[in-house]
Amino acid sequence: MTIQLDFSKLNGLLPVVTQDSETNEVLMVGFMNEAAWNHTLKTGNATYYSRSRQKLWTKGETSGHLQVVKEIRIDCDNDTVLLKVAQQGGAACHEGYKSCFYRRVEKDRLEIVGTPLFDPKEVYNK
Amino acid sequence: MTIQLDFSKLNGLLPVVTQDSETNEVLMVGFMNEAAWNHTLKTGNATYYSRSRQKLWTKGETSGHLQVVKEIRIDCDNDTVLLKVAQQGGAACHEGYKSCFYRRVEKDRLEIVGTPLFDPKEVYNK
Repeated sequence: MTIQLDFSKLNGLLPVVTQDSETNEVLMVGFMNEAAWNHTLKTGNATYYSRSRQKLWTKGETSGHLQVVKEIRIDCDNDTVLLKVAQQGGAACHEGYKSCFYRRVEKDRLEIVGTPLFDPKEVYNK
Repeated sequence: MTIQLDFSKLNGLLPVVTQDSETNEVLMVGFMNEAAWNHTLKTGNATYYSRSRQKLWTKGETSGHLQVVKEIRIDCDNDTVLLKVAQQGGAACHEGYKSCFYRRVEKDRLEIVGTPLFDPKEVYNK
């Protein structure tokens, strides 16, 4: 069974779910185009396509917080990627939390349930 | 902090990651439009927008395998939803596996790592 991904459904992009390889906590969701997929396979560091900057984006290239890929899963439709990673520095979210999903829906509002691990000002404004 | 999601980035859709609420295994990834989001909040059953059928799709409406929502997380950009669910019947994938991500990348091929829990023919061709 060779690997043929379906990049056709979102204009050349696939959603990518990135989990902590040890706890299975979902750290973030990003997108890959085919170049990002190939770069991830080649380097072993999670690389996405930034929709806002319209270019490849190796997670951690600015912060140093790389995501070392431990395992890759593909879904039944070949249109979604799941990465299990070792998050360097411990935090995936650019706001300093381990996971981008640090807010929980409580009735009609959001409650912060994560604890910040770093100060974004110190990491990104060096 | 009220809840305002950003449906603008994917033509009215948000990616949705659905996890088993007990094991944190990722079961599937789908999409929601605003109606699917509201329907999920109102009913407590995970409801997506089917891109192929272009309509709301309550997971399990055909198979009976509903996803009972236990917790909802929102990401830092307000453009991705994470559902933690109790998967009725145990399997989320229409091919009979617990998770749609039942194949792992091994070098240049895919290896099946999941075990089927049901026979799709029996569930969907009743």
